[in-house]
Amino acid sequence: MARWEPGAPQRLQQAALELFATRGFEQTTAMEIAQSAGLTERTFFRHFSDKREVLFHGQRVLVEAFVAGVESAPPDASPIDIVASALRSAASFFPDERRSHSRARQSVIDQNSALQEREQHKLAGLATAVADALRARGVDDLAAALAAESGITVFALAFAQWIREHEQRSLDEIAAEVLGELVTLTGKATAHRATSAERTDG
Amino acid sequence: MARWEPGAPQRLQQAALELFATRGFEQTTAMEIAQSAGLTERTFFRHFSDKREVLFHGQRVLVEAFVAGVESAPPDASPIDIVASALRSAASFFPDERRSHSRARQSVIDQNSALQEREQHKLAGLATAVADALRARGVDDLAAALAAESGITVFALAFAQWIREHEQRSLDEIAAEVLGELVTLTGKATAHRATSAERTDG
Repeated sequence: MARWEPGAPQRLQQAALELFATRGFEQTTAMEIAQSAGLTERTFFRHFSDKREVLFHGQRVLVEAFVAGVESAPPDASPIDIVASALRSAASFFPDERRSHSRARQSVIDQNSALQEREQHKLAGLATAVADALRARGVDDLAAALAAESGITVFALAFAQWIREHEQRSLDEIAAEVLGELVTLTGKATAHRATSAERTDG
Repeated sequence: MARWEPGAPQRLQQAALELFATRGFEQTTAMEIAQSAGLTERTFFRHFSDKREVLFHGQRVLVEAFVAGVESAPPDASPIDIVASALRSAASFFPDERRSHSRARQSVIDQNSALQEREQHKLAGLATAVADALRARGVDDLAAALAAESGITVFALAFAQWIREHEQRSLDEIAAEVLGELVTLTGKATAHRATSAERTDG
């Protein structure tokens, strides 16, 4: 009987990332990950339903961080300011000491299209959770969806920048800049075209 | 030898949607789709690599519509106005007579998580193509990515509204409104927080 291992998920994640990086995701089995971590296959499956889930284990905590950020924003905050609060909360989940882990994880995902689809699905799930939390604060449907999707876009782009080689800034700092860039960008729309009759092309 | 069938892809798509809707995506085979369309399985596989692709066949044309809209925007257009042009171009790909087809397709996708992942992957590919087209116009990396992702978000939300029951407005009209809402929303950001030192919470 394998006894409960403190830190087993972290050890399995670390071992999995190393094996995925050196021999490839497809070529690595759950058994090999467990052995490499000095654990049993049974322990592996107590923590993860399959080897793919090792890569997506942080999802629930990340969703919670986003939602906590939505909930803790001041009562009179606009939807976009609530999203800024959610981004700060999510960024605190990725301190700089996690950067190399995140970088290794991403490079595994980048090499496998099924994992990329999974990643996009997880991001979509994140957007849904944030939109739901915004609606729970009384933000209307469309604004909630737009603000949530924008927040996830900012997060994903900031995250990609954060794990780039030689990047030194914190995720929080990068996310704030990317959000600022989005605000600047959309501020340059020439018209809110209400009806096509009002439109003048060119 | 099956001869070439004009309109075969459309007939196969129509037959597939009907079968997916009545007996479920998983329970339908390529052979059954072909038979239902009065075609051979061989003809099916000349047009589609598998039954899943029947649902995603329009992707290439949609990408082209988006990119054409980016390219045809005036030379001095801002990134967000270029995206507005891309949305108008993409919307023209979905005239009202296509609405019931799009609605049927979406209800098949909504019932299958693997198809949802595929759909999200396709939307991500669309964003990448739009971002590339923006970069080709000289828009910088981050602005191109943000504008493209925002455009796809607006498109996806407008599309979901367009296929809602009793919705009468055109996709073009809805997309313009959703984009206007995004502009309004981001305009309510209280600060472009440049550094955390400058930030005042609350």
